[in-house]
Amino acid sequence: MDTTANSRAGGSPLDLLDITSAPGQENSLSPAVTDGPGGGVDFSHGDVEAFTPIPAALDRYQRAYADGDRFAYSRYRGHREIREHVAAHVGGFTGRPVDPATEIIVTPGTQGALFLALSSLVAPGDKVAIVAPDYFANSRIVAYLRAQPISVTLNYEDAASPGELDLDRLESAFAAGAKVFVYSNPNNPTGVVYSAEQTRGIAALAARYGASVVVDQLYSRLIYGTTEFTHLRSSGIGTDRCITLLGPSKTESLSGFRLGVAVGAPNVIDRMEKLQALVSLRAAGYSQAVLETWFAEPKGWLDERIQQHQQIRDDLLGIFAASGFEVRSPEGGSYMFPRLPQMSVSAEEFRTSLRAEHGITVTPGAEFGAGYEHDIRLNFSQQRDKAVEAVSTLCGLATKLAR
Amino acid sequence: MDTTANSRAGGSPLDLLDITSAPGQENSLSPAVTDGPGGGVDFSHGDVEAFTPIPAALDRYQRAYADGDRFAYSRYRGHREIREHVAAHVGGFTGRPVDPATEIIVTPGTQGALFLALSSLVAPGDKVAIVAPDYFANSRIVAYLRAQPISVTLNYEDAASPGELDLDRLESAFAAGAKVFVYSNPNNPTGVVYSAEQTRGIAALAARYGASVVVDQLYSRLIYGTTEFTHLRSSGIGTDRCITLLGPSKTESLSGFRLGVAVGAPNVIDRMEKLQALVSLRAAGYSQAVLETWFAEPKGWLDERIQQHQQIRDDLLGIFAASGFEVRSPEGGSYMFPRLPQMSVSAEEFRTSLRAEHGITVTPGAEFGAGYEHDIRLNFSQQRDKAVEAVSTLCGLATKLAR
Repeated sequence: MDTTANSRAGGSPLDLLDITSAPGQENSLSPAVTDGPGGGVDFSHGDVEAFTPIPAALDRYQRAYADGDRFAYSRYRGHREIREHVAAHVGGFTGRPVDPATEIIVTPGTQGALFLALSSLVAPGDKVAIVAPDYFANSRIVAYLRAQPISVTLNYEDAASPGELDLDRLESAFAAGAKVFVYSNPNNPTGVVYSAEQTRGIAALAARYGASVVVDQLYSRLIYGTTEFTHLRSSGIGTDRCITLLGPSKTESLSGFRLGVAVGAPNVIDRMEKLQALVSLRAAGYSQAVLETWFAEPKGWLDERIQQHQQIRDDLLGIFAASGFEVRSPEGGSYMFPRLPQMSVSAEEFRTSLRAEHGITVTPGAEFGAGYEHDIRLNFSQQRDKAVEAVSTLCGLATKLAR
Repeated sequence: MDTTANSRAGGSPLDLLDITSAPGQENSLSPAVTDGPGGGVDFSHGDVEAFTPIPAALDRYQRAYADGDRFAYSRYRGHREIREHVAAHVGGFTGRPVDPATEIIVTPGTQGALFLALSSLVAPGDKVAIVAPDYFANSRIVAYLRAQPISVTLNYEDAASPGELDLDRLESAFAAGAKVFVYSNPNNPTGVVYSAEQTRGIAALAARYGASVVVDQLYSRLIYGTTEFTHLRSSGIGTDRCITLLGPSKTESLSGFRLGVAVGAPNVIDRMEKLQALVSLRAAGYSQAVLETWFAEPKGWLDERIQQHQQIRDDLLGIFAASGFEVRSPEGGSYMFPRLPQMSVSAEEFRTSLRAEHGITVTPGAEFGAGYEHDIRLNFSQQRDKAVEAVSTLCGLATKLAR
């Protein structure tokens, strides 16, 4: 009976899209497990109990609700006063002013911003440069838009050297006609932070070839040690070429409010607002108010959060290293992307055992591109002791199954 | 400098889409006015201070927030326990059971559900039957999907007769190849409620021609007097043919939480979830919990709300009638769609004066289709006395400008 829709939109990229293993969806694989993370550790996303939201968030939400009519609805691109707050802070943070009237849109999550930005820039048949490995939705949205991805390699495997995007490959992609480049920085899933030189290189190539760049900087406030983060939008790229995506879902743990922003080229922001009018109208009106707590956290709050993540990172890296795993130390963000050792079972069987026997969920590497079937992604924004125990269990199982 | 994106995606339907006059956007026309409804009455949407959210809504939200990790994230189609609550109630309400595992998805607003449903059913070049007049986004989404709309007339102008969809035209559309029909019931903007006979007629035609039907029943709990509401999904249509859109944003005033649901054909719900994974991931995790207050309102709460809306409706109809306006009495929902009299100024100039001089905002009829340039839509979910005063002002201005 269920053939109508499939035959109707035959050939739709949606038919090819498998989301059962996508982050957050793993629980749909085994119906007996509840929506929550279960008994073990769910490394597919951060634990907002281990790292709680910005303290004032719920209070700000309640005040918006009490304010009634004024906050329930907004212009599609977001409440004016919220755009003004975010523009001022993001302008300072990224090193280039943001006009709250024309250069910013508030979206339902950074995912919403990514979908709107790519949909506004990419037409069917277009070529789009994407990074391998990178956030799984980049290639999926490109496929959904019936555009053609051109893969640009991020060399990250050599843990002793800085991660490097292959800029020659990026130039080849532009030369071959790609007019859009999308990438995450810090990179999801490897935690590579692009150097100032690499970032300026991307800006220069975009200018030379007249391309637009969408950069997902969702994790750019969670940078470790002496690593310096360079914002693309203040690296010599034209204002009409760059869209920067940010949001408070990760470092700030405001994920349950579903908030994201895009800042940049006014003509692209306009198009994104038009599409948002069709897709979702606006980010939830009361939620938008919570953005007033963003970049306005209590003194020392962010530093402490970074330090706590760095400790967990170092703990887990130590366990992986002791077990002989290849894994790079993330310079930013809360993901690590270890490679599984040679085992007597497949990577899929390993992940299934890990989940069924120990309640530990990880995201399959294949979600981030072809060739990463033997990698797994862990979001280490977790309770430190539980994460340590779970990674010890994971390494023990891998060692037991090694061949 | 801003030519890049436009030339990039040249020919995109987004270029043709003007949203400045779309409901909720009017305030962007005059920058001096704040995002709020200003001093007058904003008839472009309901006033959630006049009609407040379901009493337990904020409390339920706070409990979800306190529950931490379990509610921040969910499967893309929504938390299981929330789907179970909504499925049970919507099954009873619509007269046909809903399987919470396969037949329901929670979306960011009913707008989200509409976009996902049409995107899942319609491919470029397809023909789609839509109603004139109807909710402005229907035709816009069809255009965005590069599909071809076929307009089916709703005869509503004769206020003394029941509103009637031209079923012969609908059959012609199906015969011409339309495989999808989308409509709202109660109709937005006229308030027409389709009879049982008309609804069964739609179901029979869909079956005969193998078409899918998306019905937006956002207002189906706000039905006046002796009018009977007939649910399409229990009117003899195949389960694989029908998607029903519902949400608590209107009658229940939960608009600030951005929640909608779609129920129906499992294969379409699957496709909608895949697309939601790209567009927005999920409705905000904490907001989803608020759906537990839906269809679980205090005893008498809904009846009182309906009665209050009916009083305002009757007050406004009286004022319009006394001023010689043509307007139909809505049988459901909180919209009315009066036709402006012949005036010495254009409809646009009239609306501009109304807004600039009296702070009264209405939605232009042109938003609902070609040929409605002299109509205006009013959402009368407002404070009764303020609405009466504003409509008196509106009628007075129209009379002064009549010729």
